Amino acid sequence: MDQEQLRLLLEQVKGGGVDVDAALERLRHMPFEDLGFAKVDHHRAIRNGAPEVIFGKGKAPQHVLAIAEKLMEHGTSNLLVTRAEPAAADLLQRRFPEGEHFPLSGAFRLWRDRTMRGKGKLAVVCAGTSDIPVAEEAQVTAETMGNDVISIHDVGVAGIHRLMHNLDKLREAKVCVVVAGMEGALPSAVGGLVACPVIAVPTSIGYGASFNGLAALLGMLNSCASNVTVVNIDNGFGGGYVASLINRA
Amino acid sequence: MDQEQLRLLLEQVKGGGVDVDAALERLRHMPFEDLGFAKVDHHRAIRNGAPEVIFGKGKAPQHVLAIAEKLMEHGTSNLLVTRAEPAAADLLQRRFPEGEHFPLSGAFRLWRDRTMRGKGKLAVVCAGTSDIPVAEEAQVTAETMGNDVISIHDVGVAGIHRLMHNLDKLREAKVCVVVAGMEGALPSAVGGLVACPVIAVPTSIGYGASFNGLAALLGMLNSCASNVTVVNIDNGFGGGYVASLINRA
Amino acid sequence: MDQEQLRLLLEQVKGGGVDVDAALERLRHMPFEDLGFAKVDHHRAIRNGAPEVIFGKGKAPQHVLAIAEKLMEHGTSNLLVTRAEPAAADLLQRRFPEGEHFPLSGAFRLWRDRTMRGKGKLAVVCAGTSDIPVAEEAQVTAETMGNDVISIHDVGVAGIHRLMHNLDKLREAKVCVVVAGMEGALPSAVGGLVACPVIAVPTSIGYGASFNGLAALLGMLNSCASNVTVVNIDNGFGGGYVASLINRA
Amino acid sequence: MDQEQLRLLLEQVKGGGVDVDAALERLRHMPFEDLGFAKVDHHRAIRNGAPEVIFGKGKAPQHVLAIAEKLMEHGTSNLLVTRAEPAAADLLQRRFPEGEHFPLSGAFRLWRDRTMRGKGKLAVVCAGTSDIPVAEEAQVTAETMGNDVISIHDVGVAGIHRLMHNLDKLREAKVCVVVAGMEGALPSAVGGLVACPVIAVPTSIGYGASFNGLAALLGMLNSCASNVTVVNIDNGFGGGYVASLINRA
Amino acid sequence: MDQEQLRLLLEQVKGGGVDVDAALERLRHMPFEDLGFAKVDHHRAIRNGAPEVIFGKGKAPQHVLAIAEKLMEHGTSNLLVTRAEPAAADLLQRRFPEGEHFPLSGAFRLWRDRTMRGKGKLAVVCAGTSDIPVAEEAQVTAETMGNDVISIHDVGVAGIHRLMHNLDKLREAKVCVVVAGMEGALPSAVGGLVACPVIAVPTSIGYGASFNGLAALLGMLNSCASNVTVVNIDNGFGGGYVASLINRA
Amino acid sequence: MDQEQLRLLLEQVKGGGVDVDAALERLRHMPFEDLGFAKVDHHRAIRNGAPEVIFGKGKAPQHVLAIAEKLMEHGTSNLLVTRAEPAAADLLQRRFPEGEHFPLSGAFRLWRDRTMRGKGKLAVVCAGTSDIPVAEEAQVTAETMGNDVISIHDVGVAGIHRLMHNLDKLREAKVCVVVAGMEGALPSAVGGLVACPVIAVPTSIGYGASFNGLAALLGMLNSCASNVTVVNIDNGFGGGYVASLINRA
Amino acid sequence: MDQEQLRLLLEQVKGGGVDVDAALERLRHMPFEDLGFAKVDHHRAIRNGAPEVIFGKGKAPQHVLAIAEKLMEHGTSNLLVTRAEPAAADLLQRRFPEGEHFPLSGAFRLWRDRTMRGKGKLAVVCAGTSDIPVAEEAQVTAETMGNDVISIHDVGVAGIHRLMHNLDKLREAKVCVVVAGMEGALPSAVGGLVACPVIAVPTSIGYGASFNGLAALLGMLNSCASNVTVVNIDNGFGGGYVASLINRA
Amino acid sequence: MDQEQLRLLLEQVKGGGVDVDAALERLRHMPFEDLGFAKVDHHRAIRNGAPEVIFGKGKAPQHVLAIAEKLMEHGTSNLLVTRAEPAAADLLQRRFPEGEHFPLSGAFRLWRDRTMRGKGKLAVVCAGTSDIPVAEEAQVTAETMGNDVISIHDVGVAGIHRLMHNLDKLREAKVCVVVAGMEGALPSAVGGLVACPVIAVPTSIGYGASFNGLAALLGMLNSCASNVTVVNIDNGFGGGYVASLINRA
Repeated sequence: MDQEQLRLLLEQVKGGGVDVDAALERLRHMPFEDLGFAKVDHHRAIRNGAPEVIFGKGKAPQHVLAIAEKLMEHGTSNLLVTRAEPAAADLLQRRFPEGEHFPLSGAFRLWRDRTMRGKGKLAVVCAGTSDIPVAEEAQVTAETMGNDVISIHDVGVAGIHRLMHNLDKLREAKVCVVVAGMEGALPSAVGGLVACPVIAVPTSIGYGASFNGLAALLGMLNSCASNVTVVNIDNGFGGGYVASLINRA
Repeated sequence: MDQEQLRLLLEQVKGGGVDVDAALERLRHMPFEDLGFAKVDHHRAIRNGAPEVIFGKGKAPQHVLAIAEKLMEHGTSNLLVTRAEPAAADLLQRRFPEGEHFPLSGAFRLWRDRTMRGKGKLAVVCAGTSDIPVAEEAQVTAETMGNDVISIHDVGVAGIHRLMHNLDKLREAKVCVVVAGMEGALPSAVGGLVACPVIAVPTSIGYGASFNGLAALLGMLNSCASNVTVVNIDNGFGGGYVASLINRA
Repeated sequence: MDQEQLRLLLEQVKGGGVDVDAALERLRHMPFEDLGFAKVDHHRAIRNGAPEVIFGKGKAPQHVLAIAEKLMEHGTSNLLVTRAEPAAADLLQRRFPEGEHFPLSGAFRLWRDRTMRGKGKLAVVCAGTSDIPVAEEAQVTAETMGNDVISIHDVGVAGIHRLMHNLDKLREAKVCVVVAGMEGALPSAVGGLVACPVIAVPTSIGYGASFNGLAALLGMLNSCASNVTVVNIDNGFGGGYVASLINRA
Repeated sequence: MDQEQLRLLLEQVKGGGVDVDAALERLRHMPFEDLGFAKVDHHRAIRNGAPEVIFGKGKAPQHVLAIAEKLMEHGTSNLLVTRAEPAAADLLQRRFPEGEHFPLSGAFRLWRDRTMRGKGKLAVVCAGTSDIPVAEEAQVTAETMGNDVISIHDVGVAGIHRLMHNLDKLREAKVCVVVAGMEGALPSAVGGLVACPVIAVPTSIGYGASFNGLAALLGMLNSCASNVTVVNIDNGFGGGYVASLINRA
Repeated sequence: MDQEQLRLLLEQVKGGGVDVDAALERLRHMPFEDLGFAKVDHHRAIRNGAPEVIFGKGKAPQHVLAIAEKLMEHGTSNLLVTRAEPAAADLLQRRFPEGEHFPLSGAFRLWRDRTMRGKGKLAVVCAGTSDIPVAEEAQVTAETMGNDVISIHDVGVAGIHRLMHNLDKLREAKVCVVVAGMEGALPSAVGGLVACPVIAVPTSIGYGASFNGLAALLGMLNSCASNVTVVNIDNGFGGGYVASLINRA
Repeated sequence: MDQEQLRLLLEQVKGGGVDVDAALERLRHMPFEDLGFAKVDHHRAIRNGAPEVIFGKGKAPQHVLAIAEKLMEHGTSNLLVTRAEPAAADLLQRRFPEGEHFPLSGAFRLWRDRTMRGKGKLAVVCAGTSDIPVAEEAQVTAETMGNDVISIHDVGVAGIHRLMHNLDKLREAKVCVVVAGMEGALPSAVGGLVACPVIAVPTSIGYGASFNGLAALLGMLNSCASNVTVVNIDNGFGGGYVASLINRA
Repeated sequence: MDQEQLRLLLEQVKGGGVDVDAALERLRHMPFEDLGFAKVDHHRAIRNGAPEVIFGKGKAPQHVLAIAEKLMEHGTSNLLVTRAEPAAADLLQRRFPEGEHFPLSGAFRLWRDRTMRGKGKLAVVCAGTSDIPVAEEAQVTAETMGNDVISIHDVGVAGIHRLMHNLDKLREAKVCVVVAGMEGALPSAVGGLVACPVIAVPTSIGYGASFNGLAALLGMLNSCASNVTVVNIDNGFGGGYVASLINRA
Repeated sequence: MDQEQLRLLLEQVKGGGVDVDAALERLRHMPFEDLGFAKVDHHRAIRNGAPEVIFGKGKAPQHVLAIAEKLMEHGTSNLLVTRAEPAAADLLQRRFPEGEHFPLSGAFRLWRDRTMRGKGKLAVVCAGTSDIPVAEEAQVTAETMGNDVISIHDVGVAGIHRLMHNLDKLREAKVCVVVAGMEGALPSAVGGLVACPVIAVPTSIGYGASFNGLAALLGMLNSCASNVTVVNIDNGFGGGYVASLINRA
């Protein structure tokens, strides 16, 4: 419609209804977005197959539900709610019985578009059972964005043979998300075994000197494997999101 | 040859020269790599088109030269020396007159394989002129790995119109490396304008409370754009390397 | 009255009732404030139009009410309670039904002086919806100090077109308060678009490596825009207060 | 000229030489800045009386000289070089004998525009003699931007009577820049004595647990005076710049 | 009794019942404390007038009561319970109706020895009303150790005239305890006004970048006044204790 | 069974049912663990006398019980649950009435193997009564691993005579675990008195600037005694575990 | 002379030459210090026997000499230069051959007043030989302020018997300065052995995780001995200064 | 001789020359060490086979030589100088031509006692070639203390097959020292593969966010392997020393 306004203005210039100086003035003060430069943003999700995402943490359950309903009315892409608190998950499940709830991570998903967009497989690997909630968030995000996810749990570096045992599965993947707390060493180990990009997700799991994930975060940033990049602590969504973009590339 | 040993053992089993229990015992104690599981690693560089890389920092010039000569004898992939100190760069240039020296970043490159492996364009964007050495390292790495690099300099967020001016160039890229010091805000801005993965490289450029890149690093890890991942401070090589992997994906 | 005591002393010196040495001695030991040097402090609020302010956080509801009542008895300036906990807000609202309560920030305001003291407009800009409570505190403070406030929400740098869309509004302001959590990049972006002073308010909004606002704080202190200064984390009041002083200058 | 291009396009639309769809397309792809939105940035310095600034730190002397010469050719505003290293200062002084060199802070200034733009006085206050280089940078910046600067040195809080002694001078100012290292307490003390905005500049001066200015920075951010805002450690330029903007407000 | 054992041994040596070599051997292996070297420690409290102290924080109410009862049975010195939680304070008050409870700091005191041991006056100064609980702990400790305490509240550096107003009171003291949160600047200001030792007690009072007292702690350690020393964050007891020792010196 | 598969394969080679190349190929792709290399890990606990360990913290009580039941079914080694929350401890005690519950540390132990594996005595020393829960965890771990534990409590460095008094007991030990919070100085003191290895366990006990054990941790890492090594904050289990390994060495 | 001005004014009031209102006005605007309140500061050094002190660090040798000469002209108190760099020490020694130079700490002292002001002995204790420069600075300061100093070196907690051996010397002191780097445990140990105040001086001596004295500083702040207070890292002067004040109390 | 004094005293008691009370009094005040309790410390090195150690860092070459000469005169144990700067190493080598100099780590060793005290093998493992200097210090220390050292270099976790390849060598060891910089993940990997104690030595090797070894240190403290303990950053000596003690246990 903004382009329509611009077209209208140009038609008026053409027809003489608006003179050039007036058009010039209006163009100069016409807001940026109205010129259509940013319009792609509104349609980006649909074009890209990115889901609609609601960050549930700290939002009132009714608030989460209301946003979800509004997004479901207009869009055609999948809906992903992350870190929904139990009350919000209940409301969502009652309102959308077809939705899937993932209690470990608090994710809630509604499918509307099951197109597979990932060109290859996407692995989500985690170090310990305590890291599973964050890994689940990454996995649900990646699936919702149309990826075939290989899930490998509990292969921390203090039991390297478990990782080696999964080497073939790992090497099938076109991109890996590696989730680890404590010393955060798993991404380096995985990074050395695969040739694809590794997205490292530090978790806040740990005792004492883990300082809520700082130890894992620093460890990952200092990885001696060149194919490792890092997202924020406990940011399973971010890990799954970037990996999905890479898998489409 | 290790496979040969294994073959020999199997032949002996077949021929009855070694009985099954003895073979079993020998197999259990045969070192891991000798079974050929890890052999792929030795050939990975060649198969992947990854360059041979020498981290020059802190190494003696003669040492750098010696490693470079050895790698040039055997390999067929490109050679990249990063952060070569001036004396090392001099030695390399004299020994390999065909090599390219990049004095800002200290990189030195020898081409042997000009195959383009990047499927799309790869953008290297930097915030300020002081960040150029790190951006150059990323760019040289990406080129050496077979990418067509779009280079956009000096588009920090305090002059957002410069970034907007480059929007079309930016949106051509299939992956972006974004290099910034000080407040490290550029990756978030770029991340919001493109749909592809953004590799953020914090630099140690800044005054006082930048604490040698900590401010930029934390800023990037907390990016509100979901498509941003982060590598270590000043790690231009890492940024270029991962972006190259993504561009081949 | 202190001046009266001083006058009395001088009259006594003049009349000969107190000799010079005795007067000298008394003057030397007369407490500082009694000489009236500090008296301006008592009247500063009234002269300046600064509101009476009660920091509600951690104070007992009855305590907050009692202070509010005492200030309302004597003064003529506006009353602002910040971060009043719900119980305190209830008590205040019941006692002063004409008061305004702002539940997001916990502010409570009583108007008594509606003089506009701001010479120009004062913008309060915030990056994300989670930053609104802090922005609201800044806005309420600025309004209470007699400013016409332009409020621009949810224009974080990961969606720069939204900021550009508000450029004209922004450029109307004589001073900007910019509130942001996570990477804290918005003040740099705004600082580059306007020529006036920008007061940056970091918020504690963020995940993991935001370390309760440290990331945003460091980002803002390292802003590459020269017109940015910073106040404490979540200190919406401080941001609104300083901006109001600037707008009167 | 960009507006001219736009005008030309509109004239062509009007005249029929370009049809509406083609114009629409060209408008959509016309770079942002070309529409004139950002043009103010190019002229901002001149309109605002902001000096041309070269950050000298870490730049080669010849480089600094070359930039200075180029800026002197085209502009009409004052030129300020900050933190010029001795060799750069020498080159500048030889090339521009009329320039002023301030060896403590390394500033170098060339006057071209002596318009006084500050409406009131601007105070630059510093705590100890070791803080003078940073205070000098603030003062030179403020003078170069057209302010009448009151300079008050060596009035740290451990000798409060010295500060009280300067109270009248201090209260003349419309804005204060307060520079302090070590415990960084001076801005709070000044902030409580004046009603105007105070820009606090922490310095890296101190021993041991000052951690290169971190102690002063944190102290200033936590000031109990509501009229204090903070810039980066040792950022005298930033302090002087923002104070100048406020003094023009 | 240990001395008795030693005496017995010596008697046996004297009487010939134990020969010298055997005695020598037994002396070499006799535990340290048994020789009476450490016995002074057991009596130190009584000799010094130090109170018996129970740190109440985190102890079960019954536990606190039981320790208090045991100490009251044997000793003759005053009893001080610090940071008693409400339930513990209730139990103590019911059991010892003559005891004094200080609800702000959670201190509980039982007098048994009212000897004044402080040679001069001891000042306890605090910056803001929020710091009073810590100041109260310091004051109660100092009183319990036999000091005449001058209490000066709410004289933070942002209202320096209030501090100046109390100058005469302050200068009466032989030692000062100065309690402050936020920027922690008050000890420097006091330190510059008095000639006696100043014990600085940082408090965890503050917002955001106070980082639970870190800002105040660093500020105090970097005090530009040479007569300032520092104890742990919120350690009112420690401040009062050391000041009492100094006042007896 | 994996060895059986391998044996089967070898038998088939021997019998001619599988030719050498096919066997070679299958061996190359047979997962690592299946070759029995890692099998020792499964049996390591039994061979070593290490207990089965369940970290109870953050696990649901039913979950803890279920794991405990499963481990009791199959194994023959002792079972140790650390940091069981009260509800979990109740469930365990009801199901295994013969088990021992240690409420201070939350440990729960079931004996099945009372073999003494420690060659010498193992000392667990702690600085203050608040450190006892962590010391208890170390002691229970060490006992469960077959050690004769000497327990020495409340011998912090501010009462060095207490430590000296226990010198003989201390010097009996072949390895010491030293647990301390606050300044974490005890390991250095013990380290200087004994010739054996000292495992230092920092605790999170402390006020203000202990920063949850950081002060003790740094203190221990900087110990001037050469025989001190450190484990994570509050990691009594780790301290007891490593000390047990050393005592078997 | 300021009192003279005040006297003159009062005489004029008395004589009628200045009327009361005019006098009142002049008094109100007369600078603080001129009323003589702060005059004590000028004479404090003399009355207290505090030396004149020049912090030599970072000052040009000629500058140090010039200040020293000026102070020697006017004063009668001792002169202490701390941390004089070798060139400055040379200049001082040549100009004042009677001065004492202490090369380890860089102190330089000139006696003019040998009055003993310390009532008791003052102990300066240090942990390791590397801490001696800081201990020397404390000792020289204390001697210069009129104290009889007991010096005890190299008694770190990893060799506690050395400390015990010095117990009698230690217990003679009325105040102790305890200097230590690395884990900073010595003040706690000393604090537990003496009943007097202990001033802890952390030093920057240490490896790796000492983080330039942070470990020692935190250790000392968390001392479990109640009689310990702390000054800045490497601040031997501050330790000796405060201890001297205490010793006079 | 101290024992002689004690014997003399006892003889006097026996003979009646000193009565019991006088003897008691003298015993109470006789210094601790004189009773011979601490004498074992003087002989500890010889009994234990610990080398005499001189920390060379920061000591003047002549000083190092002088200490070395003195130790060589009296003792019979081996001499180890760590971190000798080149000039010191030269002096030592010239004076003791039979000594061994290790230029990477700066160690210098003189054998006098070649008794093997280690019961088993001691492995020193390092992650990258840059960590070799620290590993060498550990190895030289361990050898000097009588251990048979297995040295495994360059087996960082990003190339796990290299570690697996060395599994048999690794499992021969009775104790492992594992040296790593960057992410510090190797100790966890090794800890999971061996059953013996692992001493982790973080190194300061790394870029940017390694913060001089902090990342590796935190990683190691948070190891998910229970048999890992940690020493200070770059403390190869400490790692080798403790491992040697364990290997003798």
